Amino acid sequence: MRADLSRNMVGKVSRRAFVSAGAAAIFLRDGLAMANGEVQSDPLPSWNNTPSKQMVLDFVRDTTDKSSPKYVQPADRIATFDQDGTLWTEHPLYGQAQFALARLAEMAPKHTEWKTKEPFKSVLAGDRAAMGKFSEADWLQIVAATHTGMSNEAFAGLVNDWITTAKAPRFDRLYTDLIYQPMLEVMQYLRANGFRTYIVTGGGQEFVRAYSDRVYGVPPEQVVGSSIVTQYVDTNGKPVLMREPKVFFIDDGPGKAIGINMFIGKRPQAAFGNSGSTDFKAGDAQMLEWAQAGDGARLMMLVLHDDAKREYAYGPAAGLPDTSVGTFSEALLLKATKNAWVVISMKNDWKKIYPWES
Amino acid sequence: MRADLSRNMVGKVSRRAFVSAGAAAIFLRDGLAMANGEVQSDPLPSWNNTPSKQMVLDFVRDTTDKSSPKYVQPADRIATFDQDGTLWTEHPLYGQAQFALARLAEMAPKHTEWKTKEPFKSVLAGDRAAMGKFSEADWLQIVAATHTGMSNEAFAGLVNDWITTAKAPRFDRLYTDLIYQPMLEVMQYLRANGFRTYIVTGGGQEFVRAYSDRVYGVPPEQVVGSSIVTQYVDTNGKPVLMREPKVFFIDDGPGKAIGINMFIGKRPQAAFGNSGSTDFKAGDAQMLEWAQAGDGARLMMLVLHDDAKREYAYGPAAGLPDTSVGTFSEALLLKATKNAWVVISMKNDWKKIYPWES
Repeated sequence: MRADLSRNMVGKVSRRAFVSAGAAAIFLRDGLAMANGEVQSDPLPSWNNTPSKQMVLDFVRDTTDKSSPKYVQPADRIATFDQDGTLWTEHPLYGQAQFALARLAEMAPKHTEWKTKEPFKSVLAGDRAAMGKFSEADWLQIVAATHTGMSNEAFAGLVNDWITTAKAPRFDRLYTDLIYQPMLEVMQYLRANGFRTYIVTGGGQEFVRAYSDRVYGVPPEQVVGSSIVTQYVDTNGKPVLMREPKVFFIDDGPGKAIGINMFIGKRPQAAFGNSGSTDFKAGDAQMLEWAQAGDGARLMMLVLHDDAKREYAYGPAAGLPDTSVGTFSEALLLKATKNAWVVISMKNDWKKIYPWES
Repeated sequence: MRADLSRNMVGKVSRRAFVSAGAAAIFLRDGLAMANGEVQSDPLPSWNNTPSKQMVLDFVRDTTDKSSPKYVQPADRIATFDQDGTLWTEHPLYGQAQFALARLAEMAPKHTEWKTKEPFKSVLAGDRAAMGKFSEADWLQIVAATHTGMSNEAFAGLVNDWITTAKAPRFDRLYTDLIYQPMLEVMQYLRANGFRTYIVTGGGQEFVRAYSDRVYGVPPEQVVGSSIVTQYVDTNGKPVLMREPKVFFIDDGPGKAIGINMFIGKRPQAAFGNSGSTDFKAGDAQMLEWAQAGDGARLMMLVLHDDAKREYAYGPAAGLPDTSVGTFSEALLLKATKNAWVVISMKNDWKKIYPWES
């Protein structure tokens, strides 16, 4: 009943509804009280006591309590998380795009032809307006130039070098410092309850694998992402996988459900995202639909970026203009409402955004 | 030293060398004696006391003993197994091909055009000679006709119906009865020692997933296989993945190393196969090379089908003519020798082949 109450509260989605009801706090305190009267330590300390938080707690209780009709065997406990905008900051530009631009700048002296050739010319000139209008084909050219022609191992080395040193704009911190503490807590809480947490990202699978275990506690075999074709090549008796300038799989939009089936072959009970374009060709809508289409307890959550002060605010769902980076479209908001997905307000649901905040 | 001895014995591969040396039995008994004088129960009772068996025992000891320089953290313990010919019988024809032919026969009344159209005509006429000459394109037509145009769930249902009822020729038993007891023991022994066992098959990923957990104890997320394109489709508000007549990924030959990297992202310490064509475009050679290219303890094993009495004997490595089904070519034998891979003689290394043998 408690879960139903929260669900209804969240179900009536409007811009105002994102301001979480303080009244729910009493249910939350109650929910944390154990049968024997002792109070458990809060597994989600960076969350305000809102219905969103309660939904997570209810979900874990329902799926792990053997007496619950919604109990799920440990082997089948799966939760999937989008990365960009769901686990870490994606504005002003995706981390991987920043990596690609940094690589281009580094490679430019050996590619003088780029001075006059788009899309490279605009990147090297730092023309953000032009870059904002880049087509998918433009970005593919940039990826081809910066992400291919080397082995997977060499690529992982480049990513590691960059991600352990490059600073994100505005915060002047490592990109991996811009991960969301409340989402880390959800991942840890789920894992402590027998769930396996997967990252299901539109970003590059090998890019994310280079740091996912260290940063999120998600091992390589639990990273599902976009990928390019690789070629098995024997180099001096040692085989390597060489990265080719050809797309293999785009793990975005419908690709997220396809990727989940292909890599996991089990339906997640919980799915967390933050974006969806108007045509749903990009983003997390299908991943959440795929999770929801199963039986028993289901938890579908979308992070809304509505906190310009502590992070960023963007997209139609936040009442702001559209953005090509992680848009939360009106269409996604309607779908979320219709399907009773939980919309997490960063501003209201999260006490703390980043781990290093005091 | 014991391991080196076995390795040298296996290293000197010749047809005769497959006859395992009985002298190794004494080392084996010794190996099973624990430090405190007690004798452990044999984890591989269906194996004769041969060097092959000792290699498995040594490998597990080296990778799981914390004092060993070759110790591997539990999270990184990965073993990969080909299916056809390595975990179950593949002759006279792959199980999945038998499934496809059975489906064709079942669908034929609604496809009168097949009576005059190849490759269907030959299949329906039961022309084994013609079928033996089918090209890859012919088989793709058969796969397209029998494996696509339905959802993954519907397909899994068809596979389940067939595999729980269809009988394999010669033995008149379910296909899943024709699994190799000694390999099941290796899988179980590895899992009992913290390894995750993956199936890495040239066969269809969704086909194998339909029974892998029940039959081998390998859950869907640990099945890496060939796949076709799927399409995310909304059917009456419920999403399904529809199977399209288009190849997505061929997990065979070099594809096995690519598939392992894509799905697991970690290098297996142990890899088990049984086949390799002369050009190495098909089979398990690259999977074993990929495993071997890592540091520390490595175990690469190939099952040789040299037991016509209890199972089948085929392929150049068994001194028999080439076969298009699971060939163990002379080229693979040379590669195995050069790389000191262990060649398992079904005839000499295995006390028992199938679980139901007395």
